[in-house]
Amino acid sequence: MVVGILGGGQLARMLALAGHPLGLKFITLEPAEDACSAAVSEQIQGAYDDEPQLLALAKRADVVTFEFENVPARSVALLSDKVPCYPPAEALAVAQDRLNEKQMFNRLNIATAPYQTVNSFNELRQAINELGYPAVLKTRRDGYDGKGQAVLRSEADLEKGWQAVAEKPSIVEGLIPFDREVSIIAARSRSGEIACYPLTENRHQEGILRTSIVRPDDPLQSLAERYINKLLNEMNYVGVLALELFQVGDQLLANECAPRVHNSGHWTQDGAVCCQFENHLRAICDLPLGSTRPTTGHVAMLNLIGKLPARKAVLAQPDAHLHLYDKAPRSGRKLGHINLCSADKQRFEEQLEALQVLL
Amino acid sequence: MVVGILGGGQLARMLALAGHPLGLKFITLEPAEDACSAAVSEQIQGAYDDEPQLLALAKRADVVTFEFENVPARSVALLSDKVPCYPPAEALAVAQDRLNEKQMFNRLNIATAPYQTVNSFNELRQAINELGYPAVLKTRRDGYDGKGQAVLRSEADLEKGWQAVAEKPSIVEGLIPFDREVSIIAARSRSGEIACYPLTENRHQEGILRTSIVRPDDPLQSLAERYINKLLNEMNYVGVLALELFQVGDQLLANECAPRVHNSGHWTQDGAVCCQFENHLRAICDLPLGSTRPTTGHVAMLNLIGKLPARKAVLAQPDAHLHLYDKAPRSGRKLGHINLCSADKQRFEEQLEALQVLL
Repeated sequence: MVVGILGGGQLARMLALAGHPLGLKFITLEPAEDACSAAVSEQIQGAYDDEPQLLALAKRADVVTFEFENVPARSVALLSDKVPCYPPAEALAVAQDRLNEKQMFNRLNIATAPYQTVNSFNELRQAINELGYPAVLKTRRDGYDGKGQAVLRSEADLEKGWQAVAEKPSIVEGLIPFDREVSIIAARSRSGEIACYPLTENRHQEGILRTSIVRPDDPLQSLAERYINKLLNEMNYVGVLALELFQVGDQLLANECAPRVHNSGHWTQDGAVCCQFENHLRAICDLPLGSTRPTTGHVAMLNLIGKLPARKAVLAQPDAHLHLYDKAPRSGRKLGHINLCSADKQRFEEQLEALQVLL
Repeated sequence: MVVGILGGGQLARMLALAGHPLGLKFITLEPAEDACSAAVSEQIQGAYDDEPQLLALAKRADVVTFEFENVPARSVALLSDKVPCYPPAEALAVAQDRLNEKQMFNRLNIATAPYQTVNSFNELRQAINELGYPAVLKTRRDGYDGKGQAVLRSEADLEKGWQAVAEKPSIVEGLIPFDREVSIIAARSRSGEIACYPLTENRHQEGILRTSIVRPDDPLQSLAERYINKLLNEMNYVGVLALELFQVGDQLLANECAPRVHNSGHWTQDGAVCCQFENHLRAICDLPLGSTRPTTGHVAMLNLIGKLPARKAVLAQPDAHLHLYDKAPRSGRKLGHINLCSADKQRFEEQLEALQVLL
């Protein structure tokens, strides 16, 4: 069975690494010459909207999936016409537009922060009059890793904020002081089977995820599972879906969802019975889902951003697992991650501290 | 860092799958056009004694290793002259010749079954006079998976046995009734660090390994570790070494060693903190070794020989992990394996039984 992937970055790379043992083969459509999936997958070199190459991908693949959500709608339509594509076009469309996403959350009684749509500077002013400061302005489309966003703390931030979103259709949200950022990751298979991983607690810096700590017995697990189950079933979803949430007291407010394997689920490679990459593939290939149970008590994922620590120093920590993406170092770029998995709490915390010193 | 591998079979494939996350790249020298490592490694297509291609491999690789022990000595010499090669030539030479191997065991006070060398039919008769029946006749070189072997139970088996080893220099061993076949796998790094995995109990059928069951608290663990430590240090070994043993009462008799990642260590992919493939790479790349600790209480590996069970049926067992080698089915051929890892004994045994019904 050949899995086609739109995109050839680290997520495609890790999908292929997880899928070869299942007997799957991989082919990506990716414009970059030095795609980091290239060592473990065939590649059709081409733009994501290159019609002849999209058709070539559809011809070679038995099923197609996406490494990122901002796939041109026309490409999805073209592919879906020829070959089963998962997650479904509707899920991509929802995740591509923050307004659609928020509306879906609200329709399903999934709480969110208060928000307003904004299509002009005047509308921004009006929205702020209702929501008050502080607030966050976000483009409806194409934002990621904190790009296309601006925090508005006073009148003085309005003009700069409006430029930060390039005057594009946006939403503005009340900036609610939250206790924690968490995410839940779940898979839904072609036959409708659903499996949820335990919550992770996520720490961001400059808009980029730095650390995820797994919380297997979190009291908010069942609420998060209820939310993501609603989303999966609503969209007739197939594959792995990630839902980012803010905890405010005993409430969870949905922030956004990502219709793909997700950075806050990378810990599952070493800390769960079946990792998110394998479960995404099982889901889209109509196979039974693997267990999402954590294999050990204490698990963290640390992103390697911008530059790499010495490999020897990382691997000197006995419970550390290194995952590099074969990417050239560049400021703010995700180059790899470390998973730390330990049965013993003290051993875990000592190693976590030693690793954080390296980063 | 580029790792060159002589051989492009399933062991090369699983080495590459384990090594990409460490940021390693792979290139094999392999004659087959449909090498099963090809999806995850570059390949130089050529015979194992093709000098220009060996030189091409040496030029591309920062370190070279071997997927099998029967590498032509001249090829090892040629490669070693250009690039660091592990395990060392001496270890390959020892493992290539059962007589050298037995002599090393005896020199290090590692017990073996009684044996005699045999270079002619007459010598075979004489040896049997000393050892008695039953006995096993084995070619000194090139035997694997029960090939080049014959069990001798009476005078009537002698001639057929001598033909089975093709009248080649051989050894004949007393066939000692053993309680169990076990193996121990260990890694030794370039800096001399050693890490041992727990013993596995192995079941063969028609000379081919069928099942390995991990025995984390086996009372013979320390004796097996003592043996393999002696071997690793004696040969100034670098990489993963497997030692197959017979248990007779509270004794362990060394049968043979394999200077490579080993089928009875495949369980470590899902059942140990760091698998044998990653530890072999860490060892030869001068990196600290990973933990050999099992991650869960009950672990088994089941080989898939000759034909494949339905993928869905295997993956329906929640603790089963499938590892396919991308090889065409053929009688007696190793096509893949299943690792079963479970914390709960009853859950483990039920799934093991369900899987054995499939095979």
